[in-house]
Amino acid sequence: MFRGMSLLVVGTVAFDSIETPFGKAEKIIGGAATYASLAASYLTKPVHMVSVVGSDFPQDKLEEFRARGMDTSGIQIRQGEESFFWSGRYHMDMNSRDTLETRLNVLAEFDPQIPASCPNPDFLLLGNLTPSIQHLVMDRIEKRPRLVVLDTMNFWMTTALEDLKRTFPRIDVLTINEEEARMLSNEYSLVKAAKAILDMGPKYLIIKKGEHGALLFNRHEVFYAPALPLEDVFDPTGAGDTFAGGFIGYLAKSRDISFENLKRALIYGSAMASFCVERFGIERLESLSREDLDARLQMFIDLVQFDIALN
Amino acid sequence: MFRGMSLLVVGTVAFDSIETPFGKAEKIIGGAATYASLAASYLTKPVHMVSVVGSDFPQDKLEEFRARGMDTSGIQIRQGEESFFWSGRYHMDMNSRDTLETRLNVLAEFDPQIPASCPNPDFLLLGNLTPSIQHLVMDRIEKRPRLVVLDTMNFWMTTALEDLKRTFPRIDVLTINEEEARMLSNEYSLVKAAKAILDMGPKYLIIKKGEHGALLFNRHEVFYAPALPLEDVFDPTGAGDTFAGGFIGYLAKSRDISFENLKRALIYGSAMASFCVERFGIERLESLSREDLDARLQMFIDLVQFDIALN
Repeated sequence: MFRGMSLLVVGTVAFDSIETPFGKAEKIIGGAATYASLAASYLTKPVHMVSVVGSDFPQDKLEEFRARGMDTSGIQIRQGEESFFWSGRYHMDMNSRDTLETRLNVLAEFDPQIPASCPNPDFLLLGNLTPSIQHLVMDRIEKRPRLVVLDTMNFWMTTALEDLKRTFPRIDVLTINEEEARMLSNEYSLVKAAKAILDMGPKYLIIKKGEHGALLFNRHEVFYAPALPLEDVFDPTGAGDTFAGGFIGYLAKSRDISFENLKRALIYGSAMASFCVERFGIERLESLSREDLDARLQMFIDLVQFDIALN
Repeated sequence: MFRGMSLLVVGTVAFDSIETPFGKAEKIIGGAATYASLAASYLTKPVHMVSVVGSDFPQDKLEEFRARGMDTSGIQIRQGEESFFWSGRYHMDMNSRDTLETRLNVLAEFDPQIPASCPNPDFLLLGNLTPSIQHLVMDRIEKRPRLVVLDTMNFWMTTALEDLKRTFPRIDVLTINEEEARMLSNEYSLVKAAKAILDMGPKYLIIKKGEHGALLFNRHEVFYAPALPLEDVFDPTGAGDTFAGGFIGYLAKSRDISFENLKRALIYGSAMASFCVERFGIERLESLSREDLDARLQMFIDLVQFDIALN
């Protein structure tokens, strides 16, 4: 099999309790690094993970991860402490949610360590975390990765904006949602917002629009990946992380960071995210086959491809 | 030049007063049939119009329409009466608006007459009007058109639902927005909503999502046309009608109602709508060139086309 380039994923490995209009799930496995690494593991192996959990996190789950080609040697286990916990409730439109509870637990003093198995990743995904931690990870990698993707959220824009902005010249791809793009740029138009944000440093910007798809911008081009229209969005938790994992996993596999290939990667990310939302938590992501993925990619092709010949 | 099949557009020809975050325009030319016919006129000629105006409607504007290949012989002019007038205000997101005033005027007793120039249209666009008027138009056409597109809105779903539903088995394509699809079907998921609505009679359903594009459904397939990300959406008035006009205009020109060609038509409609919103009222639609349209279509191709080869 064709060997991809090395991929390191940094982020939370955690527990979530989730309420949606379709039901409830208590204390299930979650976390940005979990979703992203699972998605990436269908495209490239190994996926090196950097995270921290408490001793409450099930050992057999970590073994399962390893069996999938996820390298967990960079996941610290803090004895006698508890894993990061988030609980939230989704509204009918599934695009908005209320956080019911956040317990930082082990995350409060997270000191990320780059695993010896991957001291110099070619591809680096910095999941949503305190910007200072994201800096620390980049500081601790000797050689600048070929491509750095950073995910963040509105919370850091209000509490750690300067730290966050200092990450931008250090990264290649920033992923945020629509509302966050507007917040960060003070522009309502997403085209203007993208220009303003690219001026802050990242080479590419991905604006995630949930059920309305995602936009990829560089300074001269724009590409749009739709979300697949689904009968039911069961649980959107982790969809953004799954998207990011599919995106960078495809790039690591294909070793090509041209804009044309970033487009393909965006479709892979969208396909992975479309699976994620079909079940609670990581359930669907644990049971994919290559045939499932190919069939899903074909649905994306059918969904948007048209044939107009211009003179 | 290749001659298309005959196209009849029914709807309002009217005055609008519009407020957007970008400015104000008082008593400018508007109306569903105006926008739709203008858009269609770039693709096929003549476009036969059925409407009614008061004697306040400028004669020179009707002459301009005729010079563009819009047949105005089906537009009744009621001496001493006033044209339909609508005024509205858009919010920052441009997806929502408040109606400030609606004066039906001549529309109150609109008795649509099929022009002698086009007694049996091949393609029929029924713009948003009282469902009873839409029925009347179909009753007055002897031969069933090859394709009937009907646009409607939430107002008729609350005030004339039974009349509206009786149109569905008589038409081919229903165009409504997201919120209206949910209202009509009592389903939140657009995929489920589409199934429920197609069960009511139309062969195809187009769900318009404004800045988030449009979905085309039949019983077995779905196609998605994005909206073009624009620096500024100046005035969304008429975008839906322009979309419908571009859609049916392309079908009339190409004389092909296969699903593959409906996809292309959806892209033409979206391209036309992307021009519409760039200026107030019909201004931008009055000044297009073939080069403008081709360049815009190329932007849609670049926006969504990707190349993934599956085994």
